[in-house]
Amino acid sequence: MPELRVIPVEGIPEVHPDDVIAELVVAAATTQGTPLADGDCLVVTQKIVSKAEGRLVAIDPSDAAARRALVESESVRVLRRRGDLVISETRHGFVCANAGVDLSNVDEGSAALLPVEPDRSAKRVRDGVRAHAGVEVAVVVSDTFGRAWRHGLTDVAIGVSGLAAVVDLRGQPDDRGRELQVTEVAVADEVASAAELVMGKAAGVPVAIVRGLDPTWLREGSARELVRPSADDLFR
Amino acid sequence: MPELRVIPVEGIPEVHPDDVIAELVVAAATTQGTPLADGDCLVVTQKIVSKAEGRLVAIDPSDAAARRALVESESVRVLRRRGDLVISETRHGFVCANAGVDLSNVDEGSAALLPVEPDRSAKRVRDGVRAHAGVEVAVVVSDTFGRAWRHGLTDVAIGVSGLAAVVDLRGQPDDRGRELQVTEVAVADEVASAAELVMGKAAGVPVAIVRGLDPTWLREGSARELVRPSADDLFR
Repeated sequence: MPELRVIPVEGIPEVHPDDVIAELVVAAATTQGTPLADGDCLVVTQKIVSKAEGRLVAIDPSDAAARRALVESESVRVLRRRGDLVISETRHGFVCANAGVDLSNVDEGSAALLPVEPDRSAKRVRDGVRAHAGVEVAVVVSDTFGRAWRHGLTDVAIGVSGLAAVVDLRGQPDDRGRELQVTEVAVADEVASAAELVMGKAAGVPVAIVRGLDPTWLREGSARELVRPSADDLFR
Repeated sequence: MPELRVIPVEGIPEVHPDDVIAELVVAAATTQGTPLADGDCLVVTQKIVSKAEGRLVAIDPSDAAARRALVESESVRVLRRRGDLVISETRHGFVCANAGVDLSNVDEGSAALLPVEPDRSAKRVRDGVRAHAGVEVAVVVSDTFGRAWRHGLTDVAIGVSGLAAVVDLRGQPDDRGRELQVTEVAVADEVASAAELVMGKAAGVPVAIVRGLDPTWLREGSARELVRPSADDLFR
């Protein structure tokens, strides 16, 4: 079994609306001596995707009512409130704080919203890498979410292209030859978390290369696989 | 920023009560040509820790009432039930399915319970590696948990030694020099997830080396940092 490498991509410049992320990543990865290769998985943070797609809105960060209205306009359902904190469900079906509206690492007076269709955002980067570098990669768009029950944030996948989001090992025998009990692994979330370990929240590294993933996982996938249907969710 | 390497440790034999995991890992890592080094983080699955610590109980897997009684005896609080599935809180404060009682990859007729004190289990491995190989590593004991809202399982940390479980970046400026909004990152959970990507549920690789973590994270930590206090938890 080969090892996995998680390589931060440094030197990505500030991203502006209509920038082509694939070009920026191909150039930066080549410059730092780790050019992209077939079978790599690129993890790209939501923030630069939202910036490239112009998902920025003007807001006075000191205006609590305006912040609240923005969060509600990005939510289809509010699950919990406590003080300024809102836990809500987005149009995509993700449950997270403040509907993913992000005021950090964007210009003062603006907020970044989640991409409209994060799978399509991931596919755009993937197609761009193919066009610019002739290389077939998978792409995960990641964001930083809290969890019920556990303290601390982890990065998860909100968009996927060229990677199965959930790998189903049901029916494969365990090491006793019996069926496994629980075996649907959210590999796209684990890939996002692995990438976060080399990004650093304040270090300005918005992209990482995950190299060495099981090639059988590199097939069409969607972050919709990661959304637990409400009817099947005991906590929604 | 250096890259991260996630290296599966193959060739660990079947683990029995009173086996010394540190010895098995040091030997297997050396044999495969990736000897442990200072600053490595070892991720060890709960299953082999529970086996080494004799946390196995006899149970007839077809006896639903006995399974239910066992899960309840390992729980301090049941949050939800649906059919055979119980979501409960363990003595450690972890919320998971079936209180972490595991019937897969153990001998027919027995179940593996969570370690009594997983931080201590991690410390035992860490101390053993120091004694057997003269190397200072961090250790994470990992288990596979489901999540609210998101489909698919991920590996998380249930025990930690020599690694901060949560790294608090609050107050460090973002790339605009302003304070970050949300910045407590559950790095121990992300390390466990990264390791899972090279383990494979049915492949019998119960240990991985994570090499290249930020050295400032390698300090005393506890998986208790990962337990969100009930009073602070909107979903318990």
